[in-house]
Amino acid sequence: MRMVDLIHKKREGQELTTEEINFIIDGYSRGAIPDYQLSAFTMAVFYQGMTERETADLTLAMVESGEQIDLSKIEGIKVDKHSTGGVGDTTTLVLGPLVATAGVPVAKMSGRGLGHTGGTIDKLESIEGFHVELNNQEFIDQVNKVKLSVIGQTANLTPADKKLYALRDVTATVDSIPLIASSIMSKKIAAGADAIVLDVKTGDGAFMKTTEKSFELAKAMVDIGTLTKRNTVAVVSDMDQPLGFAVGNALEVKEAIETLKGNGPKDLEELCLVLGSHMLVLGEKAKTVEEAYQILEDIIHSGKAIETLKEFVKAQGGNPDVIDNPDLLPQAEALIDVIAEEEGFVHKIHAEEIGISAMMLGAGRETKESEIDLAVGIKLNKKVGDRVDKGDVIATLYVNNPKNVEEVKRKVLAAYTIGSEKLAERPLIFGIVTKDGIQKN
Amino acid sequence: MRMVDLIHKKREGQELTTEEINFIIDGYSRGAIPDYQLSAFTMAVFYQGMTERETADLTLAMVESGEQIDLSKIEGIKVDKHSTGGVGDTTTLVLGPLVATAGVPVAKMSGRGLGHTGGTIDKLESIEGFHVELNNQEFIDQVNKVKLSVIGQTANLTPADKKLYALRDVTATVDSIPLIASSIMSKKIAAGADAIVLDVKTGDGAFMKTTEKSFELAKAMVDIGTLTKRNTVAVVSDMDQPLGFAVGNALEVKEAIETLKGNGPKDLEELCLVLGSHMLVLGEKAKTVEEAYQILEDIIHSGKAIETLKEFVKAQGGNPDVIDNPDLLPQAEALIDVIAEEEGFVHKIHAEEIGISAMMLGAGRETKESEIDLAVGIKLNKKVGDRVDKGDVIATLYVNNPKNVEEVKRKVLAAYTIGSEKLAERPLIFGIVTKDGIQKN
Repeated sequence: MRMVDLIHKKREGQELTTEEINFIIDGYSRGAIPDYQLSAFTMAVFYQGMTERETADLTLAMVESGEQIDLSKIEGIKVDKHSTGGVGDTTTLVLGPLVATAGVPVAKMSGRGLGHTGGTIDKLESIEGFHVELNNQEFIDQVNKVKLSVIGQTANLTPADKKLYALRDVTATVDSIPLIASSIMSKKIAAGADAIVLDVKTGDGAFMKTTEKSFELAKAMVDIGTLTKRNTVAVVSDMDQPLGFAVGNALEVKEAIETLKGNGPKDLEELCLVLGSHMLVLGEKAKTVEEAYQILEDIIHSGKAIETLKEFVKAQGGNPDVIDNPDLLPQAEALIDVIAEEEGFVHKIHAEEIGISAMMLGAGRETKESEIDLAVGIKLNKKVGDRVDKGDVIATLYVNNPKNVEEVKRKVLAAYTIGSEKLAERPLIFGIVTKDGIQKN
Repeated sequence: MRMVDLIHKKREGQELTTEEINFIIDGYSRGAIPDYQLSAFTMAVFYQGMTERETADLTLAMVESGEQIDLSKIEGIKVDKHSTGGVGDTTTLVLGPLVATAGVPVAKMSGRGLGHTGGTIDKLESIEGFHVELNNQEFIDQVNKVKLSVIGQTANLTPADKKLYALRDVTATVDSIPLIASSIMSKKIAAGADAIVLDVKTGDGAFMKTTEKSFELAKAMVDIGTLTKRNTVAVVSDMDQPLGFAVGNALEVKEAIETLKGNGPKDLEELCLVLGSHMLVLGEKAKTVEEAYQILEDIIHSGKAIETLKEFVKAQGGNPDVIDNPDLLPQAEALIDVIAEEEGFVHKIHAEEIGISAMMLGAGRETKESEIDLAVGIKLNKKVGDRVDKGDVIATLYVNNPKNVEEVKRKVLAAYTIGSEKLAERPLIFGIVTKDGIQKN
């Protein structure tokens, strides 16, 4: 088998065999196939696509390229959740305690933030004492006991995907549906998931700008799940504005606590209830999504989710008092308001720009080496559909270092699109993709 | 400027600026842009193509990447000729003396053969004493005196093209019209041509299998010529069988001598007259192609072309007696006939297979390091349209080392397609492309 012939085959739009895809990924992992052949191949994939079978084979080949986490010692069906990347996306912090309380084991490996998106581990570390360095046995024991643990990625998962992603990033082949889908799914499968719930973001602030493309990606991932026997459901949700009000590490933890107490932003709560319901069904803790939704609402109102959160924080060395008294979280020195300069209705809030603004205040990392400030960030005061008058506070900056505050203020202001008319409400959930088909709202 | 953005731009089908193309080729030449970005770029070009302007810019950028031959000390318009690669293509050996006699200076840098195609220099070296190692001054002086010189490629011409071609070869991006066209034209321009006549082969034995693709390539090269101010004409000619009868170095020299004496194969003579006519018009030695054709026919019949060939051979140290007595050329030890096993009419002779057969006898190089045997080769006895009876000699092998003769016999036999009916005659010349348009026969 010669790589040049396989590039040619894909270039001409023919389907590659399982053996051929394994040859490519194995050879690339071992360094036997050079970058310059892979980049020509991925560009051919960009134009020609891949069949469902090819995409599933690519996913499994990347899983095989590295370590695979064995979660078989954890009782129950391990349901993992993944978001395609949002701003102010506090869902993991809410969902973990929520579905764990309902009996679904959550054994999550998570990452740190880079660029305009935050990382769950950074957020959790804003809780005093909280640490993510558990060994494998401690991790498994904790999930069996508390039903919830979040640790950093220590194992060498899907190195082929890492290598390929870095290559795609510099060769303009990132935005190919089969390549995105297999990249995401390979990481979930290698991390030991039995079933997967995906939150595919759509809109101006998301990687997928149109709902059409978002459904395409959702379907590609669900198809991989079906072919690799990991029951998978994808929810396509709005990212024409950040989720909730808070963007920034401690600010988002506080918002997650409020949500678990039943006092959170409506959009964040609703999305968590929808995603959580599908997790419960996949985890066989409810028969229908409607039943699951009711269970989760009850858990919030009973205060049980807050108890699970406390146990989880305690088990990983964090100060559980934070949950009753969120003011114990890191506090910014100054609060600076961003004032509206025009009147009208909020049409859009460019999530990526808000994410970058928060990063500029110190809440995110510009490069992997950047240090972050857990206390700082942005709290939105006006969201899509809200009426704004000149002089209104549209957002508040939480600041420790005032050096670029003026620039950030301008940036936040520019992220808001304000129009004279109130637009028809945009749905939060655009639809659900399961192995049985696509159901659009 | 970032290469990844330029790949993205081309991927989306947008036109690159001159500055952007220069950035790519200059960066790649210097090693500042890596192979893996260029291969993704060329794959995007494969799908999206390039405009005439982009293709011309790419050509000039590759010319600029290396040395450029200065032929300004040679009087007259230097008209170069290039063939896209044929088998038994003896045109250069015929055309050189022919157009030189008519006053067009021929200052040719030529190469050695590789694979199934022969090289002009190898062919010339079958003349005892002939050498191609002239310095620049000797080269120029000889062209001014004899109007004809052929030397090996010593200068570092178009290194960017060499590097890019090697990359395309292993990334399945060879067969892209703008990339082929710019590769060929950059070499001709760097070698100092004022005007160019191209022989674009078409058919089963050619790189371009269909006439449609051949005209497309021809037009792309003529467009480059127009935009870079090198008057260019392309002739699209048949390669559904080898040209002439002889395939092999000394055999082809002998055939060229016969052709210059007016006794050559009709197809070889006709193609040389057509290509030569266009060279005369571009070299301003005739006003029309018809007039030029007449001049060249007269030159052959007057014996003047043979005199020029003798002067040229003598000037480069070769034994001119060879021209009057071609038996002085290297002779093979054994002549072995290939006998027809069926009857009918010759429909096709797969030129590439004949070329490979000759290579297997020792006439060509399998790798750059192979030694070749100048005496051996193949002489075709039957050509397309000819009637064949069982037992007829269809070709004769000229052999020194009989080790794989049986295999070669089978291969030559298999290269012939013989059918029961006589097919309509396929034209030798399919059409001409000039800056004024395409004229199909």
